[in-house]
Amino acid sequence: MTYRLAERTSRLSASHVRTILSLAAKPDVIAFTGGMPAQELFPVDELKKASVEVLSESGGEALQYNQPQGYAPLRRKICCLMKDSGIDADPENVLVTSGSQQGIDLTAKLFLEKGDTVICEGPTYLAALNVFSLYMANVVHVAMDESGMDTAALERTLQLHPEAKLIYTIPDFQNPTGRTMSLERRRRLVELANRYDVLIVEDNPYGAIRYSGTPLPALKHFDTEGRVVHLGTFSKILSPGLRVGWLCAPAPIMDTYTGFKQMDDVHTNIFAQMIADKYLENNDLTAHLKQIRKLYKRRKDIMVQSIETYFPDGIKHSDPQGGLFIWVELPESLDAQDVFKKCVAHRVAFVPGGPFAADGTADHAFRMSYANMTEEKIIEGMKRIGAVLTSIMAGKPSIR
Amino acid sequence: MTYRLAERTSRLSASHVRTILSLAAKPDVIAFTGGMPAQELFPVDELKKASVEVLSESGGEALQYNQPQGYAPLRRKICCLMKDSGIDADPENVLVTSGSQQGIDLTAKLFLEKGDTVICEGPTYLAALNVFSLYMANVVHVAMDESGMDTAALERTLQLHPEAKLIYTIPDFQNPTGRTMSLERRRRLVELANRYDVLIVEDNPYGAIRYSGTPLPALKHFDTEGRVVHLGTFSKILSPGLRVGWLCAPAPIMDTYTGFKQMDDVHTNIFAQMIADKYLENNDLTAHLKQIRKLYKRRKDIMVQSIETYFPDGIKHSDPQGGLFIWVELPESLDAQDVFKKCVAHRVAFVPGGPFAADGTADHAFRMSYANMTEEKIIEGMKRIGAVLTSIMAGKPSIR
Repeated sequence: MTYRLAERTSRLSASHVRTILSLAAKPDVIAFTGGMPAQELFPVDELKKASVEVLSESGGEALQYNQPQGYAPLRRKICCLMKDSGIDADPENVLVTSGSQQGIDLTAKLFLEKGDTVICEGPTYLAALNVFSLYMANVVHVAMDESGMDTAALERTLQLHPEAKLIYTIPDFQNPTGRTMSLERRRRLVELANRYDVLIVEDNPYGAIRYSGTPLPALKHFDTEGRVVHLGTFSKILSPGLRVGWLCAPAPIMDTYTGFKQMDDVHTNIFAQMIADKYLENNDLTAHLKQIRKLYKRRKDIMVQSIETYFPDGIKHSDPQGGLFIWVELPESLDAQDVFKKCVAHRVAFVPGGPFAADGTADHAFRMSYANMTEEKIIEGMKRIGAVLTSIMAGKPSIR
Repeated sequence: MTYRLAERTSRLSASHVRTILSLAAKPDVIAFTGGMPAQELFPVDELKKASVEVLSESGGEALQYNQPQGYAPLRRKICCLMKDSGIDADPENVLVTSGSQQGIDLTAKLFLEKGDTVICEGPTYLAALNVFSLYMANVVHVAMDESGMDTAALERTLQLHPEAKLIYTIPDFQNPTGRTMSLERRRRLVELANRYDVLIVEDNPYGAIRYSGTPLPALKHFDTEGRVVHLGTFSKILSPGLRVGWLCAPAPIMDTYTGFKQMDDVHTNIFAQMIADKYLENNDLTAHLKQIRKLYKRRKDIMVQSIETYFPDGIKHSDPQGGLFIWVELPESLDAQDVFKKCVAHRVAFVPGGPFAADGTADHAFRMSYANMTEEKIIEGMKRIGAVLTSIMAGKPSIR
């Protein structure tokens, strides 16, 4: 049997990352690798109650086929949620997706041809890079700093790449850096997209998990031309296992999104949509978010303190105001993959930065998540990484 | 804003079908349009019990991220289920999908390039045609009769199209015709695929719903070369709303499938997977299938009897041994879309055949589902369609 695979299969690099991470999947390894929310925060009892109510009240509907666009009452509640980000949307512009990953895939499917250019922050969410690559697009990274994507650099990139079709960005507590785009740059980014006529894909999985600083409006808030596709999800605020996310898109492309969604998987699990809807109806999401923010802030603080205590000098780290991740930058001469291997030998793990940047600019960095980890393990983990780094950097005095 | 959509968006024809079907979406129209299972057969109480047990015993796991390949205990049970179709599979060769529609999309994503040739029965499942079209492939239909795809015609097609990459087929109670491929043709189809080195995609959503005749082994049963991708689903035997299906693929391409699945939507709703698993553990699926088969046989019988009573002479219909659908063929001079419009005016609807064949050979036919319809409505509906057809055909005596 000859498997005549499509060319796009050659772009599949995820297995490489999976191979790396499988090294860390041992019970005695303290792994800061995943982007998983804290399991103890899942409102299990409330979701159980919601499940029972949905099946008791509307079992037939919850188990039958439904509309591709998603459950209308949930789409209305999603519009209310998005108001917190300054987005004034109509439920007709919302499509419920099987997690926001599907929103990325659908967007790529709608827009990308082989050879197209996508502009992303450097580094950025590796599974978004993988999707763009799978649709045979080329990624051009724009550097970022503590205020998010550098919009001056973005303008130069847009001038160099007038063919660019879309800008993919995570303005709040970016994956992998944890950084947040400043208000001024948000305005500027939308202005530039208007001027250069580029679509913006705003991925916002973490926006609701801000535990310090001032909430900022979404890019979609500044959109006056139908230029921003906004992606959201219940994964980080309720449960990732339910796979319920959404996209909010301009009216002229909603039918195409909905048609593609239907071809993909008919519709998102309607039972899960109705559970999310019922949960939002019966419970105080704001109170639940307060709990999440409190725990994540505590864990982030502990991780930052422990980094500062146990890591040697010469190492930079981000200090996020929300979300799940801290980004660590080693001296550029160090390869985070090598450090990773040594760390795993010392029973601690993170995600090496390489796969987060298509241009090789993140090989010296790594990502850690504090969200799903106890304080004790965070401290012990930072001690272990710190010891490995100290030993490596002591052996290479030239890099100090 | 200029939406620079990918070329594949121009292939989206589903909205045309949706526009047609929206005409039938009125409360007083008896609509045989959907492929929906009978709602009263959903084991609502058992699934409620399963939901509560899953969340009580393993709430954290059921709500957290999980592996892209799917829940291992469920994959083991799927292998047991597939034994009924003569398939001896390892759980490592099973990927849990968000319904079997996703299995079709993933397969197209793995294999199809622009301009590739896909061989299908004519007519066939319209959403599969739409997916192949969206990946810019060309569909070549092979005629079928009451014994399924005509394998002699298939061989001629393979000779004419040596470039063909895959054969998509629904051997059991095909959508839209309700026809089943004979044992001899199953063997022959696999032989031909071996000889011409083509992949077979066997879509089997209805196989478990056989209410008469002898069960036949799946094409996958005859596969000795890793040439058959088998698609299954819980949609028709448990609940379509849960969106849990699977694909069973040869070992050399499993990693690629799993990687693409991860890029698509990370993994299938794990809560739904665990509910399905728990349901299968706690309940007698065979007894449940007996109930489904009994009801569907009764409804199919009533529909066939009513067609024979109320439809005028000169009209052919299939008489399925399972599944959800009956296929009606009018005299070739009639356009089923015109008949559809007249029927909707008489408050009854079906799906006009046109979209089920890319080559225009099904414009005189239509599909009806009896599965989710009461006996009274089936009889009344056939009366109404019969009256419309009698009036049309009386006005065109030449076609008798």
